[in-house]
Amino acid sequence: MPDRYFWLRCTLCGAEYEATPATYTCSRCGEAGILDVEYDYDYVRARLTRDGLATSRDASMWRYLPLLPVDPASPRPNLRVGGTPLYRCDRFARAIGLREVWIKDDGLNPTCSLKDRASAVGVVKAREAGASVVACSSTGNAGSSLAGNAAAAGLQSYVFVPDRAPRGKLAQLLIFGARVVAVKGSYEDAFRLSMEAIRRWGWYNRNAALNPYLMEGKKTVSLEIAEQMRWRVPDWVAVSVGDGCTIAGVGKGFFDLQACGLIDRVPRLLGVQALGCAPLYRAFRAGTEQWVPEPENTLADSIAVGVPRNPLKALRAVRRSGGEMVAVTDEEILEAMRVLGSSAGVFAEPAAAAAFAGVARARREGVISADEVVVGIVTGNGIKDVANAMKAAGEPIHIPPDLGELQRILGEER
Amino acid sequence: MPDRYFWLRCTLCGAEYEATPATYTCSRCGEAGILDVEYDYDYVRARLTRDGLATSRDASMWRYLPLLPVDPASPRPNLRVGGTPLYRCDRFARAIGLREVWIKDDGLNPTCSLKDRASAVGVVKAREAGASVVACSSTGNAGSSLAGNAAAAGLQSYVFVPDRAPRGKLAQLLIFGARVVAVKGSYEDAFRLSMEAIRRWGWYNRNAALNPYLMEGKKTVSLEIAEQMRWRVPDWVAVSVGDGCTIAGVGKGFFDLQACGLIDRVPRLLGVQALGCAPLYRAFRAGTEQWVPEPENTLADSIAVGVPRNPLKALRAVRRSGGEMVAVTDEEILEAMRVLGSSAGVFAEPAAAAAFAGVARARREGVISADEVVVGIVTGNGIKDVANAMKAAGEPIHIPPDLGELQRILGEER
Repeated sequence: MPDRYFWLRCTLCGAEYEATPATYTCSRCGEAGILDVEYDYDYVRARLTRDGLATSRDASMWRYLPLLPVDPASPRPNLRVGGTPLYRCDRFARAIGLREVWIKDDGLNPTCSLKDRASAVGVVKAREAGASVVACSSTGNAGSSLAGNAAAAGLQSYVFVPDRAPRGKLAQLLIFGARVVAVKGSYEDAFRLSMEAIRRWGWYNRNAALNPYLMEGKKTVSLEIAEQMRWRVPDWVAVSVGDGCTIAGVGKGFFDLQACGLIDRVPRLLGVQALGCAPLYRAFRAGTEQWVPEPENTLADSIAVGVPRNPLKALRAVRRSGGEMVAVTDEEILEAMRVLGSSAGVFAEPAAAAAFAGVARARREGVISADEVVVGIVTGNGIKDVANAMKAAGEPIHIPPDLGELQRILGEER
Repeated sequence: MPDRYFWLRCTLCGAEYEATPATYTCSRCGEAGILDVEYDYDYVRARLTRDGLATSRDASMWRYLPLLPVDPASPRPNLRVGGTPLYRCDRFARAIGLREVWIKDDGLNPTCSLKDRASAVGVVKAREAGASVVACSSTGNAGSSLAGNAAAAGLQSYVFVPDRAPRGKLAQLLIFGARVVAVKGSYEDAFRLSMEAIRRWGWYNRNAALNPYLMEGKKTVSLEIAEQMRWRVPDWVAVSVGDGCTIAGVGKGFFDLQACGLIDRVPRLLGVQALGCAPLYRAFRAGTEQWVPEPENTLADSIAVGVPRNPLKALRAVRRSGGEMVAVTDEEILEAMRVLGSSAGVFAEPAAAAAFAGVARARREGVISADEVVVGIVTGNGIKDVANAMKAAGEPIHIPPDLGELQRILGEER
């Protein structure tokens, strides 16, 4: 092993840093100086091969260990993160006018979202840093994935949420033994208090945009997609966009695979925001890296981010891939939830369904053509958000226990 | 292929039947004459080997195709059912005074419960029967698993529920495109109306105890446990018991593996009921097959079954394995939810956590000794039942966004 086969580089000023576990942002640029992990790709290329993967018995994201920024000897949380299924769904494809659509169901991760991939890496880095406590602010998936992975690794987690957080998300956090701090105030208040507490008590910081290692976990979803498609690169990969970390990670995965020679081109990224909160979509369409904060008017809570924390990486990833951004209405999101559920048997949370609503819109607008191959990522399980699912799903048939009555109703429907 | 390498036999009178897809119960014994699937084990033994499995690329329950009662050429629903993780969890083991405990997390199936294994087989049999509609009654996991698997296979599902069913379970059903009939009345009313409607319209019947093929799907959880433990048979496998179908399926899996020569002994089954509704536990302890209906006084809704529909198969499976039954209080169930979540990062629904509460109790009572190897099955994901999770989990720390305040509270706790 060379002294170090990965290091950190500032996305703003280009300064290089040693990849110590608790290095978060650029010391020159401050909190805006988000760091990127870079690898010695020749080193990785010799250790991550198609043949080696074909015989690997590891069904989790850790099968890609040479492309992950951890000490290979570090203990990992005892949960199977990643290894989620990829389905080709022709009925869904037909419903939106495409020939070939694949669904990557990351809602089947241990805590039911893609965020488990980031938290698994975060917990490994926390232990490498010698921390026994790891903390973040969250309104949902990030927090519960941290809590679950920390529990499985024997670490204490602290999660800061605004006190309006739905009971369901609180329940998941508390069951995993997280110390949950419900802050009387906004999400921004919870975020700031988490940062103060992290500094005060020296906890490990799992706030996604600030910690460069987390995106490396997220990128494993792309490594899996490429391998599950037997290295046939799709034309498009669609993913919803909130603060920008996830789509940046999805892009990083494909660019890293290309750098290692495992694929010869990168799919175009389709970034999808909710029209009610679309600062990155508007910046993308305006051809700029300047974005304007927006209010958060969408039911897709996981991507309702008016002040995105990772705008640069997200916009750059989409542009570098030759991709596109679209925005969709809440009605389109609810419709996508229904069509995914009834044509594919996949239950997506609103933010996840947005990616597929975006594919349908991009098809209608001619951005995607009918014969292109598209993969959409379900970033979170709809079972976490029952209230919005009911909005999408409609009502059951209410009747007394009487066959005649049922016969009358079913007859009328025909 | 021989003419038929599986057939059906009545558990009451022993009559043998050809395994046609829509054969449900014994024509002599009526609805009580539940059928069992039997195989030509020599035929299976030649087709299901340890070496063959070691190189199989199928990560789902269908890797055990020769031991499943379907035409190998039948199309299968496009969902990855099974292939769920098995974790060894030493922290959890220590917490309950054991040396080696494994957790089989079947809550990570596509619709978040073990029932997906039964519904996947049910949907295949429905298509073999030429049906385009498949129906069942349910208050939860069975219905949503049917709806999800039917959607993925392009079949219409009808699910009959009592109208008191929680919104969360309705949402999942409706999103998968099921026609949901909410019956004004009890679960028994919903069950009877479903049976009348199935007869009236000729739908395929996925009511678990009556359809002999469903248990065969459930048994795949045992095949996975044996293979994941590299064919080292645990001393005990613990599973919660409601109507009895699941534990009967778990037992069938191990007995089938033994009949094929893949394992040389069968683990002892630990059947766990909730004390508030434990007719099979009481019959087991009384050494009889006669059980007495009971009221349904437990928060573990999935096993709150006062009139179990598969008592014989369940009691016989536990006895034949040399196993035991125990019953646990709701408080023990909530405690098991907390310990599983905080020591293993696994979120179990109350009925699933009951199995682990039962392991703890069996250890305390000396039924299980400290050096025995135990596997417990998480039959459903706790995210489906937020209200009870909150009962288990307690409350967050509520504070204004002020570090001094947090410092005061955390200081006081120490």
